Amino acid sequence: MSNEHLLNSRLPRLWHGGDYNPEQWPSQVWDDDVRLMQTARCNVATIGIFSWSKLEPSEGRFDFAWMDDVIDRLSRGDRWFILATPSAAPPAWLSRRYPETLRTGADGVRRRHGNRVNYNLASKVYREKTREIARRLSERYGAHPRLLAWHMSNEYGGADYGEESASAFRLWLQRKFGTLDALNAAYWTTFWSHTYTDWEEIHPPGAPHGEESIQGLTVDWQRFVTDQTIDFMLNEAAPLRELSPEVPITTNMMGTYPGLDYRKFASHIDFTSWDSYPAFQGGLEETKIWVAAAFKHDLTRSIKPKMPWLLMESTPSSGNWYPYMALKRPGMHRLEAVQAVAHGADGVQYFQWRQSRGSQEQLHGAVVGHAGDEGTRVFQEVKAVGEELESLAHLVGTQVDAEVAIVYDWEVRWAIDAASGPVRESKKYEETCIEHYRAFWQAGVPVDVIGLDDPLDRYKVVVAPMAYSLRPGFAERVKAFVEAGGTFVTTYLTGWVDENSLVYEGGFLSPLRELLGIWSEELDVLYPGHSKASEFVDDNDLGLAGQFTASDFCELIHLTTAKAAATYAEDFYEGRPSVTVNRVGDGLAYYVASRTEPTFNDAFLTAIAQKAGVETFLLPTGVTVQRRVGGGREFHFFLNATPNSVSFSTERSGKVELPPWGAEVR
Amino acid sequence: MSNEHLLNSRLPRLWHGGDYNPEQWPSQVWDDDVRLMQTARCNVATIGIFSWSKLEPSEGRFDFAWMDDVIDRLSRGDRWFILATPSAAPPAWLSRRYPETLRTGADGVRRRHGNRVNYNLASKVYREKTREIARRLSERYGAHPRLLAWHMSNEYGGADYGEESASAFRLWLQRKFGTLDALNAAYWTTFWSHTYTDWEEIHPPGAPHGEESIQGLTVDWQRFVTDQTIDFMLNEAAPLRELSPEVPITTNMMGTYPGLDYRKFASHIDFTSWDSYPAFQGGLEETKIWVAAAFKHDLTRSIKPKMPWLLMESTPSSGNWYPYMALKRPGMHRLEAVQAVAHGADGVQYFQWRQSRGSQEQLHGAVVGHAGDEGTRVFQEVKAVGEELESLAHLVGTQVDAEVAIVYDWEVRWAIDAASGPVRESKKYEETCIEHYRAFWQAGVPVDVIGLDDPLDRYKVVVAPMAYSLRPGFAERVKAFVEAGGTFVTTYLTGWVDENSLVYEGGFLSPLRELLGIWSEELDVLYPGHSKASEFVDDNDLGLAGQFTASDFCELIHLTTAKAAATYAEDFYEGRPSVTVNRVGDGLAYYVASRTEPTFNDAFLTAIAQKAGVETFLLPTGVTVQRRVGGGREFHFFLNATPNSVSFSTERSGKVELPPWGAEVR
Amino acid sequence: MSNEHLLNSRLPRLWHGGDYNPEQWPSQVWDDDVRLMQTARCNVATIGIFSWSKLEPSEGRFDFAWMDDVIDRLSRGDRWFILATPSAAPPAWLSRRYPETLRTGADGVRRRHGNRVNYNLASKVYREKTREIARRLSERYGAHPRLLAWHMSNEYGGADYGEESASAFRLWLQRKFGTLDALNAAYWTTFWSHTYTDWEEIHPPGAPHGEESIQGLTVDWQRFVTDQTIDFMLNEAAPLRELSPEVPITTNMMGTYPGLDYRKFASHIDFTSWDSYPAFQGGLEETKIWVAAAFKHDLTRSIKPKMPWLLMESTPSSGNWYPYMALKRPGMHRLEAVQAVAHGADGVQYFQWRQSRGSQEQLHGAVVGHAGDEGTRVFQEVKAVGEELESLAHLVGTQVDAEVAIVYDWEVRWAIDAASGPVRESKKYEETCIEHYRAFWQAGVPVDVIGLDDPLDRYKVVVAPMAYSLRPGFAERVKAFVEAGGTFVTTYLTGWVDENSLVYEGGFLSPLRELLGIWSEELDVLYPGHSKASEFVDDNDLGLAGQFTASDFCELIHLTTAKAAATYAEDFYEGRPSVTVNRVGDGLAYYVASRTEPTFNDAFLTAIAQKAGVETFLLPTGVTVQRRVGGGREFHFFLNATPNSVSFSTERSGKVELPPWGAEVR
Repeated sequence: MSNEHLLNSRLPRLWHGGDYNPEQWPSQVWDDDVRLMQTARCNVATIGIFSWSKLEPSEGRFDFAWMDDVIDRLSRGDRWFILATPSAAPPAWLSRRYPETLRTGADGVRRRHGNRVNYNLASKVYREKTREIARRLSERYGAHPRLLAWHMSNEYGGADYGEESASAFRLWLQRKFGTLDALNAAYWTTFWSHTYTDWEEIHPPGAPHGEESIQGLTVDWQRFVTDQTIDFMLNEAAPLRELSPEVPITTNMMGTYPGLDYRKFASHIDFTSWDSYPAFQGGLEETKIWVAAAFKHDLTRSIKPKMPWLLMESTPSSGNWYPYMALKRPGMHRLEAVQAVAHGADGVQYFQWRQSRGSQEQLHGAVVGHAGDEGTRVFQEVKAVGEELESLAHLVGTQVDAEVAIVYDWEVRWAIDAASGPVRESKKYEETCIEHYRAFWQAGVPVDVIGLDDPLDRYKVVVAPMAYSLRPGFAERVKAFVEAGGTFVTTYLTGWVDENSLVYEGGFLSPLRELLGIWSEELDVLYPGHSKASEFVDDNDLGLAGQFTASDFCELIHLTTAKAAATYAEDFYEGRPSVTVNRVGDGLAYYVASRTEPTFNDAFLTAIAQKAGVETFLLPTGVTVQRRVGGGREFHFFLNATPNSVSFSTERSGKVELPPWGAEVR
Repeated sequence: MSNEHLLNSRLPRLWHGGDYNPEQWPSQVWDDDVRLMQTARCNVATIGIFSWSKLEPSEGRFDFAWMDDVIDRLSRGDRWFILATPSAAPPAWLSRRYPETLRTGADGVRRRHGNRVNYNLASKVYREKTREIARRLSERYGAHPRLLAWHMSNEYGGADYGEESASAFRLWLQRKFGTLDALNAAYWTTFWSHTYTDWEEIHPPGAPHGEESIQGLTVDWQRFVTDQTIDFMLNEAAPLRELSPEVPITTNMMGTYPGLDYRKFASHIDFTSWDSYPAFQGGLEETKIWVAAAFKHDLTRSIKPKMPWLLMESTPSSGNWYPYMALKRPGMHRLEAVQAVAHGADGVQYFQWRQSRGSQEQLHGAVVGHAGDEGTRVFQEVKAVGEELESLAHLVGTQVDAEVAIVYDWEVRWAIDAASGPVRESKKYEETCIEHYRAFWQAGVPVDVIGLDDPLDRYKVVVAPMAYSLRPGFAERVKAFVEAGGTFVTTYLTGWVDENSLVYEGGFLSPLRELLGIWSEELDVLYPGHSKASEFVDDNDLGLAGQFTASDFCELIHLTTAKAAATYAEDFYEGRPSVTVNRVGDGLAYYVASRTEPTFNDAFLTAIAQKAGVETFLLPTGVTVQRRVGGGREFHFFLNATPNSVSFSTERSGKVELPPWGAEVR
Repeated sequence: MSNEHLLNSRLPRLWHGGDYNPEQWPSQVWDDDVRLMQTARCNVATIGIFSWSKLEPSEGRFDFAWMDDVIDRLSRGDRWFILATPSAAPPAWLSRRYPETLRTGADGVRRRHGNRVNYNLASKVYREKTREIARRLSERYGAHPRLLAWHMSNEYGGADYGEESASAFRLWLQRKFGTLDALNAAYWTTFWSHTYTDWEEIHPPGAPHGEESIQGLTVDWQRFVTDQTIDFMLNEAAPLRELSPEVPITTNMMGTYPGLDYRKFASHIDFTSWDSYPAFQGGLEETKIWVAAAFKHDLTRSIKPKMPWLLMESTPSSGNWYPYMALKRPGMHRLEAVQAVAHGADGVQYFQWRQSRGSQEQLHGAVVGHAGDEGTRVFQEVKAVGEELESLAHLVGTQVDAEVAIVYDWEVRWAIDAASGPVRESKKYEETCIEHYRAFWQAGVPVDVIGLDDPLDRYKVVVAPMAYSLRPGFAERVKAFVEAGGTFVTTYLTGWVDENSLVYEGGFLSPLRELLGIWSEELDVLYPGHSKASEFVDDNDLGLAGQFTASDFCELIHLTTAKAAATYAEDFYEGRPSVTVNRVGDGLAYYVASRTEPTFNDAFLTAIAQKAGVETFLLPTGVTVQRRVGGGREFHFFLNATPNSVSFSTERSGKVELPPWGAEVR
């Protein structure tokens, strides 16, 4: 088995474990921890995430003895470990001696020491210190045979607005634009007399007392923050790469977290991982929570195609920051673990191993809780998952192979969120992408979640909802994809602005007008509670019939070469097209002009998939089947994301019966 | 035709046009703009509003060539122009070089460059710079024969809380009070040991870390901000007045905007104008939005009696800052334009002519939109309005002649908003004034919206709802008005405090007690959802009968010389008067003690009007008729502010049929 | 009659009066005030609360002449007075000359002069100044025969976050912990690498830009603020104690105000007093508002056992800071006064005597209002209360004698509010304590409201709802209480953490496990709208039967020695115990595992009381009876907290008939 499609060939099984913070406890607890890990079939422990003050108790004085001890005990107990760089939480002495290492908020106020991820991304001193501690860790543990991966910091996020970062931003802009004239043109600064005449006049946007009205600046700032964060990561990764080049690197992402374009991390890490915390409500109908988790799993996986990923954190019971700490019902924990594997994870980990007696996350769920050791329901469920993951070891090396892709692009999200209009509150970009994803999930269709720049030719169907801002080349690649036989689906609010948030010359949809065979005149925004009916036209190419309704957005378009598949059925735009299809080369390009209801999406996207030759399944509502393939075999994961028992048949699997929150792998 | 009652005799037609920002575009677009203006019957363009960085690209270096070119093209195309001073948005170089020109927030934080209207009203440097650029514009264009008006800055608003403004405020207070003793007495500072012993101890109120508890100080600060803003305007207007005394001056107001007492601008400008942006919802019952717009039109008009006014900005489609950018349904745009003329406007203008590709307002509606030139629905509707306005040219010189006035006074609003109690959230002063206005609007009665200091003798009926604070002389003038035969109506929460927010010695209503023939003991405030019934007494002088209900406020009063027209019908104040009337001289003074429902207001105010000899109409709900008179003629505007077709007759006009959102001028 | 159980033997009657601020008015009003006080049977006036700027108009220049005059007039009119130290509102000259005396907010911004209670608790200068003015007052008036009490400042509250306070906090922590190691251990700072290495690294928590994640630090800060406030009070009390040791000291508390642990004030004051402002809604069913007031009365009383207390402030009509200033219906004012006496008050006072013409509280209710002198409804109701209080003079010296105690502990509240989880918003600690109190109130059972450290042996039943954090010794004292025959009741979320917010080793409930005979495994938190049914087991020891439902919290426990009295009836924990009882020695210990509905609490707590030999009454809903005893007599207060007339009988009192909001003392 080659290392190519594995997290790390040192442990070619499904990983199971979690964040382990033994430094909070006296060492007499540690042996008990190893014994309990063995009991629970937890083969991996992630250590060192918040250990800086223990590793370097005062400046330049390092203490690795305790970590040596912990690693020895883990090794003797046949456990493996992931080792984190500790940059997410600096020691107090560092903040005191070097206050410039602390982060500055958008309001210009420098943070005090405390909480976490409160460091200045631009600080030279902080970068020296984080690189040095990473070098020490690499020197001491980089060659350890049981080290599975480097865990870069923890949940990179947020932004720094201090003067060092502002300067770095200006340099970033100079590199991007070359001249102020180019920047002024791209930002349309003539409006409101905003023309910049000196680079120093530019400040990070978003300050309550500063510039908020230049969308291009806002989006560029978010691009810069991603680049700056990667640069920060590469600085602390450098000694790791240098001294332990064979140890893979990852960092724990946060799904659709809007602050960072995770796709830009792809080339700098060896596998992806993320922290999944769906907030279950304790037994109610909550399928959509499972669908959103699935979407983020597929998003995380698609960032590194052909690679497995790692569920780096999840909770075995509940999370202390949920609005309500509802318990997971029996079975839900197993379903969550199997779901991750179904979507390509080669490991399931928890935050945290042993519940902390004090501080912020003392009430956060853990494998070993306050109430007892192995005697608890939670521990027993974790153990059962551990046993099941052991039994699924043959899945290692298999992959998810999707024929459908949905575009969820961070720059689109930034642009649409930065837009002043067409609604003042959330435009629901993420929710809309997930709603389109849901239709495929319900039909048992594996999906990749990709960005605007990703290759399209590996798919039969590409769906790009609300692709508000486009980047150069996308329209051309979509055209080639469709001409070669692909099916492309897009919606209202697509192609309004370019990568600098300038409305396209020629108007909305300009780069895609020819492909879609339409032009767009205006957008009607509906107040909450309002809706507009549409109906399918007779003999439309999808064979669909009847009415459906739209809410929120109704774009008013005109056909050029496309045909209407549905038309509005009321108001002054009655009879005008609401769904269109355009044949281009060997493929089809669809446009959905309004925000449609789930029943439309189910029917429409299933028909699209079938027409494109993608296999679909007829499954009970809230149930999906997902697949991993490899070594000539195909594994089906039947997942019941409902509190009801279900029973159904599929052609290939025959009859399937699942209890509430049940899962079965065949 | 004299200039007396015209915006400017140079263009004695109804004006049509809008904000035009050609500097955002290459000059090849400009000829197209002029052609399209001709097509759309747009005869006026407002230029220069945000052009400072183009006019003065660096300090002291001026560039008027592009503006010369624009004006030449407009002139050659037989268009006219309004020219703005550019002070609303300073160039970036100015903010960088003179940071003291930037505004300081209530929190004491100086703003960074960005957005707009972010300048320090007190800054000596800023005043020099704005005066200099105004002088240059005046020198170059003041004598241009196609210049129709000076547009002072843009939407003056907000306040500066910096040290320069604080000092100016202290001087303002010294001028007002003379001594600290007088100020202390007026502010009742003995309470909470607030006695000032040095002028320097006084800071602008409203800071999150400062004084909030002296109502008189709060109201005086708002008076000061108005005076300071006018002073700022006069500084930049001075070279215009000096060099082009024949060109009228206006500034675009914002209706009932609470930050400035627009009436104090009256003597410094030649005609009023305002930016009207009713947020239509796309077809639902929304008559009240039209009524509110009408109220603000009449408010704007009444500020300069006998003069027409200009709708300086409106949107031909939607505004990007609305909560939801609903499209105006076909017909609504025309109704909005005709409505403005019906209420005395001699012109209808838009923001903006050509939609900007980028920056804050790129999605704001425009005449020439992203989607195309004249090929759009919006352009065609604008063109139709242009044609209609041309056909109504004979209205120029006519006026609105109102026999009823409603008092909406900024100082009352400030005082009632500053009051700590009787409810914690909005007291709904503006909404209440508009609700009283609505009853007259529904009855087809033209109304002036006046202030406490305006003359009353021109009216038959004066209604002053919730006139919480009074100014010296008002009570005397009302008394004279009633004695001479006028009808005065006022309500709960009237006459509680004097102009310094001191409760009147002798209690609520003191200055009006004799006139109203009642005294007021206490106010019951109802929780949301609660109501209290009243019923008319038999044989009341208005001939009304039956019950009505009140919400929010029930004032408990005692009769002295007045008679009860209605009494409360429940709770411990059952039987006590809720509506009273007092005959004084030849007139009548009414008091409505509780916040009544619309059906009461319709019946009560219509009866009041009829009794006072004011003509009323019986019209379908949501339909009004408004009038302009002049040259011996009378023009009736029938306006249907509903989504339904209506048909009705009036004695003078015969049968009228109007489609949804229909308007007709006879 | 000894002084022991009296507010002050100088006036051995029920006190009646209020805050009197004559310095706002010309002296001609003062004689009228005294006359009206006589009319209204107001025998006490509280003066000087906000008089600093009148007493010391400029630094070091004192003026007592006006106060001499006021006191003379009161004395001549046979009135008594309470004298306040004026520290709540410093004069403007002091803030200007010594800006360091102004308070600094959590955000690090120093307040400007204005409002009140805006002083720096740590300021040396401010302490000098407040002590000096207190000394002057004491010298001049301390020996006055009509001085009844010293009123320390006004509504101590809030916190200062400036550098002086931060330093004082660090010293406080050093005294508490001795070493940083001890502090680090108690705060579990290893988590998130928070280990402190220097005392200077510690800042007050709660800053928006600072530490928020260490619960122990948060709770210690609140302990410190209490200690610092007491220290501030003692500083200004020192000259009073020295020069007028026979004059009792009090300070007006604010019920359950979360910012200060009022029990720590007990040993420093001579009697308690508080400002009660229930926000009545004007006639609706609002019994719970009366119950909450009763709870706070009993809390205030229990702080100084065996002593009467004083209702220092209440409003005779409405408060200007209520969301809606509803009038109290006729009778409610009397009920409020009698209710206070029923719960042990020996006086009823108002804020304020004469309504201020201006400033913040000009609309706050007063005895003498804007509308008139004695001619108003409010004045007449106050007068009637005055007459009734005179007729109840025989109650002076009697006491409330409670056999039931409910634990409401400030440190518990702080700990539970600081906890991150198990819900994100309010955990409803106060509401839950009051809900348990309500059941006893409805059953006519007098209750003390005590803290964790108070003696238990005087009670038959002790109820400690949600006692989330415990302090050393509590468990032992409860054990002794139960063994000696007492009945102890506690609930979910009890005993989770120790006094430093560390989860107990051994898990939830550890110190009480043996007593309760259970252990707790996990807590299910229900989303709003969800509920779980329970049912009583057959033959439970309380003789209760049927089902009840829970919301919010369901703790999942295991029996060791206890018996289940009820079990969950649904979900995966069906059949597991939801109410348990454990017999220990001669007593019983109950555990209620879920947040139950009022009908359960009524049945359960009444049964508990009866079983424990506490007398209960069967009363109409919303009606209570409370008792005072003394001199061998027992006085029953029948209180109807509903808008309906009620009629009922009790064994001892026979038939009782009460009008809406009626009260009767027998």
